[in-house]
Amino acid sequence: MKLSSTLVFSLGALLLSQAAQAQFAKPEDAVKYRKNALFVMQQHYARIGAMTAGRVPFDAKVAQDNAETALFMAKLPWAAFGEGTDKGDTKAKAEIWKEMDKFKDGSDKMVAEMQKLVAATRTGNLDNVKASFTAASGTCKSCHDAYREK
Amino acid sequence: MKLSSTLVFSLGALLLSQAAQAQFAKPEDAVKYRKNALFVMQQHYARIGAMTAGRVPFDAKVAQDNAETALFMAKLPWAAFGEGTDKGDTKAKAEIWKEMDKFKDGSDKMVAEMQKLVAATRTGNLDNVKASFTAASGTCKSCHDAYREK
Repeated sequence: MKLSSTLVFSLGALLLSQAAQAQFAKPEDAVKYRKNALFVMQQHYARIGAMTAGRVPFDAKVAQDNAETALFMAKLPWAAFGEGTDKGDTKAKAEIWKEMDKFKDGSDKMVAEMQKLVAATRTGNLDNVKASFTAASGTCKSCHDAYREK
Repeated sequence: MKLSSTLVFSLGALLLSQAAQAQFAKPEDAVKYRKNALFVMQQHYARIGAMTAGRVPFDAKVAQDNAETALFMAKLPWAAFGEGTDKGDTKAKAEIWKEMDKFKDGSDKMVAEMQKLVAATRTGNLDNVKASFTAASGTCKSCHDAYREK
């Protein structure tokens, strides 16, 4: 007996979906996890923003430490956007699950810009950090505009 | 004019306190930050617990990935227990700020056990992971018993 490629694909998708779900005991945990990870990221990211805006003196070492933590945190939330996590205490729009490839592309871009921000802080040059911070912030905004309720 | 050593000490303590506070825009942010970081840590830690308890098949690579993330997260919350963060939406007991050295010692022990858990997952041996998970869990419990409201 030969399985049709459609059936094999469906089985594969089901298994992948189950694997993603198995990470969280319940959908509420996934929602809480991604919000919490993003808040921790934002707190570190904002400390670099305070320097690029001139509200806090620039300290390259502090900027680098915060950029590295923000980069680490930036990679975490996306596994928590599995099936069934579009409900509950969340501002996530239904579009995320309709356009998962596009959403994933946006999160990949954000992580890539955060990586560049780490590199910029390593140069110790505030102008480099400013340019990279602006670029990274653009990726936050484009996803929020498209996929987060006001 | 010579500053008294007491005054110098007080100024130093004030500056340190301001530096710690400057990390967070307001005390509520610090409370939210430490709770969020601990929740993210717990989610990764629990995935290792599911393996050591036999609820999920042991996968050394998955255990290692989760232990590494739990270790990273384990280092974050402690900067958010500054002065003025004993109020609000928190179960943190006042004892934390009365015995900060002891509290800090407990968090250092937890981070050290989490480091050992990463090492245990790298051996690929489930018994090593079980022993290390039990030891690490003990450091969670002792701090919760002493410093967290039920």
